[in-house]
Amino acid sequence: MPVTRLPAAPNSASAGPGIRTDYEVHFRGALDKLHGERRYRVFADIERIAGRFPAATWRRADGSTREITVWCSNDYLGMGQHPEVVGAMTDTAKRCGVGAGGTRNIAGNNSPLVDLERELADLHGKEAGLVFTSGYVSNQAGISTIAKLIPNCLILSDAYNHNSMIEGVRHSGCEKRIFRHNDLAHLEELLIEAGDRPKLIVFESVYSMDGDVAPIGKICDLADRYGAMTYLDEVHAVGLYGERGAGIAERDGVMHRVDVIEGTLAKGFGCVGGYITASSAICDAVRSFAPGFIFTTALPPAVAAAARASVRYLKHSKSEREAHQRQAARTKAALDAAGLPVLATTTHIVPVMVGDAELCKAAADHLLECHGIYIQPINYPTVPRGTERLRITPSPFHDEAQIQKLTAALAETWDSLDLPRAGTVFVEAAE
Amino acid sequence: MPVTRLPAAPNSASAGPGIRTDYEVHFRGALDKLHGERRYRVFADIERIAGRFPAATWRRADGSTREITVWCSNDYLGMGQHPEVVGAMTDTAKRCGVGAGGTRNIAGNNSPLVDLERELADLHGKEAGLVFTSGYVSNQAGISTIAKLIPNCLILSDAYNHNSMIEGVRHSGCEKRIFRHNDLAHLEELLIEAGDRPKLIVFESVYSMDGDVAPIGKICDLADRYGAMTYLDEVHAVGLYGERGAGIAERDGVMHRVDVIEGTLAKGFGCVGGYITASSAICDAVRSFAPGFIFTTALPPAVAAAARASVRYLKHSKSEREAHQRQAARTKAALDAAGLPVLATTTHIVPVMVGDAELCKAAADHLLECHGIYIQPINYPTVPRGTERLRITPSPFHDEAQIQKLTAALAETWDSLDLPRAGTVFVEAAE
Ligand SMILES: Cc1ncc(COP(=O)(O)O)c(C=O)c1O
Ligand SMILES: Cc1ncc(COP(=O)(O)O)c(C=O)c1O
Repeated sequence: MPVTRLPAAPNSASAGPGIRTDYEVHFRGALDKLHGERRYRVFADIERIAGRFPAATWRRADGSTREITVWCSNDYLGMGQHPEVVGAMTDTAKRCGVGAGGTRNIAGNNSPLVDLERELADLHGKEAGLVFTSGYVSNQAGISTIAKLIPNCLILSDAYNHNSMIEGVRHSGCEKRIFRHNDLAHLEELLIEAGDRPKLIVFESVYSMDGDVAPIGKICDLADRYGAMTYLDEVHAVGLYGERGAGIAERDGVMHRVDVIEGTLAKGFGCVGGYITASSAICDAVRSFAPGFIFTTALPPAVAAAARASVRYLKHSKSEREAHQRQAARTKAALDAAGLPVLATTTHIVPVMVGDAELCKAAADHLLECHGIYIQPINYPTVPRGTERLRITPSPFHDEAQIQKLTAALAETWDSLDLPRAGTVFVEAAE
Repeated sequence: MPVTRLPAAPNSASAGPGIRTDYEVHFRGALDKLHGERRYRVFADIERIAGRFPAATWRRADGSTREITVWCSNDYLGMGQHPEVVGAMTDTAKRCGVGAGGTRNIAGNNSPLVDLERELADLHGKEAGLVFTSGYVSNQAGISTIAKLIPNCLILSDAYNHNSMIEGVRHSGCEKRIFRHNDLAHLEELLIEAGDRPKLIVFESVYSMDGDVAPIGKICDLADRYGAMTYLDEVHAVGLYGERGAGIAERDGVMHRVDVIEGTLAKGFGCVGGYITASSAICDAVRSFAPGFIFTTALPPAVAAAARASVRYLKHSKSEREAHQRQAARTKAALDAAGLPVLATTTHIVPVMVGDAELCKAAADHLLECHGIYIQPINYPTVPRGTERLRITPSPFHDEAQIQKLTAALAETWDSLDLPRAGTVFVEAAE
């Protein structure tokens, strides 16, 4: 091979031990840009206190701590702290150890995980279940593998789908069409346009940032009419809706009509991990072909056992779901009465609009510093610019006194920062 | 919009509740093909027994159980069962509950996880660490995000890199060149050919299927000479090599020369999760831009605490590493003496070659059924066709009697299935 060019200059300049300034400049530059756009994220360092949900200890950068109330957890029902769930984790860790010790294929296929998959298949009324290390990976690996196995598949994807689903769609390499969010007419147009090629409709039940709900039954009608397969993300609904906590599709009586139901073990169920449930052939094919499933260590038995305990418990106990809806409704009513710009939702999610990244962060900082209330600001890219918000997630454990305290704290914050009140119209800013 | 085509036939044919035969055929077909190629994988259903590593309970399809010895775990040191590690998990679960309750940004940034990242940065002598849900995700998200942030980056990737790295490279959208496995001359050719554009060299330290080791120092020499950045996967070395268990780069005294060191918490450390360590700017940029890091629930505090306990313990205790190397060497010697075709390696990995998918599976089945020894067969696509093997991973807890039992069982299996003995040349079959 002819060597014609001279090697580049040696990499001697250094910012610290082993740090190359020539490359560092790119990473620093990208971070500076985030700071400039007020999009640089600071993570609150918190430690939740089991048995005292929603209380947590907040640790500041200087190491000092303060007790706070968490109002933005996605452990929606506090199941992560349920004695049966914690007990299943600790018992199993003592019996089997911590990790799985291998991939599913190589020594990692632990019995609690196999049992969890059966439990999840039963939950959703499907032939089989398949567990992944996260809901993110279940979407990324699940959607891409399923779509790849269908020759000439066209994917129809809701415009508001979660990043993990978008990655799954992208990764499939299939052609895709985006339908306007929850817009049945647009979906139908695209289905007709596609003709009789195979089609996969990919959508969510509860959209987590606006708290609105997909018309699952009507989407299944269209799927039947035009011969499409359906893949539904119930991540923000499992544990929370339906007679046994299987989600919105169960609540609406249409669970059997959806081909693939995907969920997480990390939100309503309070643990970690994700899954799909579907026919045996679909689950077996994903198990056999998805690199993101094959080439990674299995979920630990202690986590699987905890998740299974949570799923089982919520199949039988409805009181958490009822209390959850009740406290969410009360929170919305209280904030609404105080003139705060609450987005009207029919679900457990309570978005309070701010409409500006910097003010949104300032409001959150103020709430934490002055009121001991933790609500993470939600900015772009999680929501469109111009629709920045505080996303509040009441749980069965947020009691009346805490709701009153929250309302007063928000009202004070809105006053002191002069934030927009109810009636303001928030519009998505163009990029 | 003009509607010109007729809708496809309604999807009424059904194999079971909610199962569409028209789509099922694709998944069934893909599975049939696997069966036909003898590549269909059956996962052994096992439950490890804490305190009695490497013993486990094997559960058959009919529910009956049998105690077996695991010889293929990647919990290389048995740390998943270490009392300090199990204790950290159970204590933290009792104190903080099971799940993290949110993404890193939204309520999930738990203190044990923040502490774990500091511990990992210290382990590898880097400014910062960043933890992901798995080693797989750390590679996929880490490599793709780092490479994307470097304008016009060319990735130079070892031909034997793990699927998670390949996905990271692919996902970056960057141009790439594959260098022949561990081939410095070829790497140098490609570096020279690339000229002075930014370059990222992506490679592993211990390659897990052959058990061979990269010349890290020499690769760093080339990186310095041609101005490339380096990204090293130490997944099969962390906890196992080096004075404090930081891996091969530590053992070789070149850790400070590698820009990004990636590792897993799921193998030598016995837990679950993955990470990168690097400069603050690199970790902060990946934290801020990687979708696979941003849009997923954080690792649970109980898992983070267990992993940290394991990392800390192995920083100070060398006896596990010594016993590990000793028992691996003894296993290799015993199998070699019995005339079995052991691949010569300098690491803890003991591949015994079979060279045929069906025979490899038959050997593994025979070992499990007749000898209570569990070694998963390693077939394509994990290794090239024609190089199918049993991959044996001795641990500090596999004692002399177990090594003798293994040797006798393998010898009997090789006889009864008439498998190739030492001296056979195994060649990669063309695809
Ligand atoms: C709609 C949706 N799907 C999937 C996920 C990913 O689930 P997990 O946190 O288990 O990775 C999330 C959020 O985390 C989500 O909001
Ligand atoms: C080289 C290599 N990198 C990364 C991984 C993924 O690590 P994890 O199991 O933590 O996902 C593996 C195997 O699992 C591997 O062999």
